[in-house]
Amino acid sequence: MELLKQRILQDGKVLDGNILKVDSFINHQIDPKLAFEIGKEFHRIFQDTEIDKILTIETSGIAFALCAGYYFNLPVVFAKKQAGRNMSCDVYKGKVYSFTKETEYTISVAHQFLSPGERLLLIDDFLANGQAIMGLMDIAKQAKATVSGVGIVIEKGFQPGSTLLRDLGVRLESLVVIESFKDKKIIFREALK
Amino acid sequence: MELLKQRILQDGKVLDGNILKVDSFINHQIDPKLAFEIGKEFHRIFQDTEIDKILTIETSGIAFALCAGYYFNLPVVFAKKQAGRNMSCDVYKGKVYSFTKETEYTISVAHQFLSPGERLLLIDDFLANGQAIMGLMDIAKQAKATVSGVGIVIEKGFQPGSTLLRDLGVRLESLVVIESFKDKKIIFREALK
Repeated sequence: MELLKQRILQDGKVLDGNILKVDSFINHQIDPKLAFEIGKEFHRIFQDTEIDKILTIETSGIAFALCAGYYFNLPVVFAKKQAGRNMSCDVYKGKVYSFTKETEYTISVAHQFLSPGERLLLIDDFLANGQAIMGLMDIAKQAKATVSGVGIVIEKGFQPGSTLLRDLGVRLESLVVIESFKDKKIIFREALK
Repeated sequence: MELLKQRILQDGKVLDGNILKVDSFINHQIDPKLAFEIGKEFHRIFQDTEIDKILTIETSGIAFALCAGYYFNLPVVFAKKQAGRNMSCDVYKGKVYSFTKETEYTISVAHQFLSPGERLLLIDDFLANGQAIMGLMDIAKQAKATVSGVGIVIEKGFQPGSTLLRDLGVRLESLVVIESFKDKKIIFREALK
């Protein structure tokens, strides 16, 4: 997605340890017009796929899942990271290890929002080690729902998440893939198509 | 907002303890088309107000702030509930007591995303005790930014948040106000205009 690449080059920052900061337009401050273009692009890519619902994970996936949901005209469910007092006990739970925060946390989705046979599009902002998506896939499996595809805004191609998902036969579509960082410059993977 | 009232009557559930559950369309599963109508309504209400940025708080405020931001064509910043490893130390911090979760938590916004003199529209899904909005207002004050208004999707009029904010001279606009619950039925406050 050329618009997104250009924005990453313009406003993204590469920190030590191959950390890409895009928090001025993706995940602390959000550019709503860009978020909509991202949602539209997910719709373009997956429009011929049978999808009943969009599933994401709080926090940073919500904006892009919402915008995709707008174009698909489908409900968006986000997995919660912590169960509130108001949350029913009837939840599917998954474990996610965050390498960024160096901690494991539990995500949950209420039973009523996932049904057997539902075809899900999973959306998240980043794919690195794939742990968040694996947690969502685990929840989908418990609900006997099907994962029709995974849409990622920014994939770090040099981390194991994409291989992990493709080895499981998952259809993974990332809007941009970062191949590597060289001297704090971002090298994108060019599409083979 | 009539559309929202009708949706609350149709899909909202009143639990014991005056808890209104709207998690099938507002804050676990989200209806993107409704979220857009909500964003459009915030824009209609505040269109003559001078606003530079929209500020909300994760998690449930994000969808509505994003949709409002789309109509205003303004950046949306969400305060984070927990500082990640990637988060700079240069953050404004506020304390929020959650009556729902019976715990106090810290919210933070990176310095770079709020500037002195910026005029902010604060948006959140619910207003009950007003603690989340007070936390955001504290952060705005630290940044020497101005709060031009507060937009709330659902206000619980029988809880102290709205009085607290209006006593501070804040312009508060709630799309629907719940006056009370009677035998688990929802009574809306009718607009005086």
